Amino acid sequence: MSTIFTKIIKGEIPCYKIAEDDNYFAFLDINPVAKGHVLVVPKKEVDVFFELSDDLLEGIMPFCKKVAKAIESVVECDRIGLTVIGLEVPHAHVHLIPITNMGDMSFSKEKLKLNPKDFMELAQKIQAVIA
Amino acid sequence: MSTIFTKIIKGEIPCYKIAEDDNYFAFLDINPVAKGHVLVVPKKEVDVFFELSDDLLEGIMPFCKKVAKAIESVVECDRIGLTVIGLEVPHAHVHLIPITNMGDMSFSKEKLKLNPKDFMELAQKIQAVIA
Repeated sequence: MSTIFTKIIKGEIPCYKIAEDDNYFAFLDINPVAKGHVLVVPKKEVDVFFELSDDLLEGIMPFCKKVAKAIESVVECDRIGLTVIGLEVPHAHVHLIPITNMGDMSFSKEKLKLNPKDFMELAQKIQAVIA
Repeated sequence: MSTIFTKIIKGEIPCYKIAEDDNYFAFLDINPVAKGHVLVVPKKEVDVFFELSDDLLEGIMPFCKKVAKAIESVVECDRIGLTVIGLEVPHAHVHLIPITNMGDMSFSKEKLKLNPKDFMELAQKIQAVIA
C-alpha cells in the first residue's frame, strides 16, 4: 500500500505544496513545529533515509537549500534547521524548520495551530519565491 | 579565529575521530544525546549549513550514509536520525544520532556520560567498520 506521502505526491490526498522536481516533493507540514515547517520527500518510496541511493542523497540537500532559502525569505528566523527522524511514516522525509533558538526544533512541544487560509497564504508566498 | 571544529580537524584539539575524506570530517560528540552520536563537519569553515556550496551539500549525505551504516552496525538502534541546528558553533555540522524512539533525538534531555575509555573503544569500533 502507498504511504501517505506517496498519496500526497500523486494528488490523492491534498496538501499545501511548495515545490517539486523529478525526484523530490516539498509541502507544508500540517502539524508544524513552527510557522514555515516544510517536509521534503523523495518521490521514490523508501522507508529509511540512509537507504536512499547515493544519487538521491546527493540531490536532496541542494533541493532542500532552494526550499530553505525561500522559507527564510518569508518567515522571520535566524536560519532553517533540518532533521530526519522517520519513525512515524515509512517514507523518508526531511523536516525543514525555521529556528531562532535551540528549543525551536523540539517535537515534544505543542504544535502550532494554523487554519487552512493561513496555510494556503504561507504556501503561496513560499512558492512564489521559488518559482 | 578558527572555529572549535576547524581546530579539531587540524588536530589542534583532540577528538575521537571516526572518518574523514577531502571534504568532510566525522568524530564523536563528547556531549552525546545517545551512544554513537557523531558530528559530521565540512572541512570548509561555513557557519550556516544551507550556505554551503551545492557541491558540498551533494557530497555530505553520501558521506553521512557511510558513517551512519557504520554506527548502526556497532550501536543497537532502529536507525540513524540526523539533525542540523547549528546555533551553538558557527561551523556547519550534521548530528548523526542512533534512535529507536521519537524522544531519542531530544537535545533537552540529560546528555549521556561516557568516560575516555568508552569513547575510545566506541570510536575504534565504528572506525573499523568504515576502514
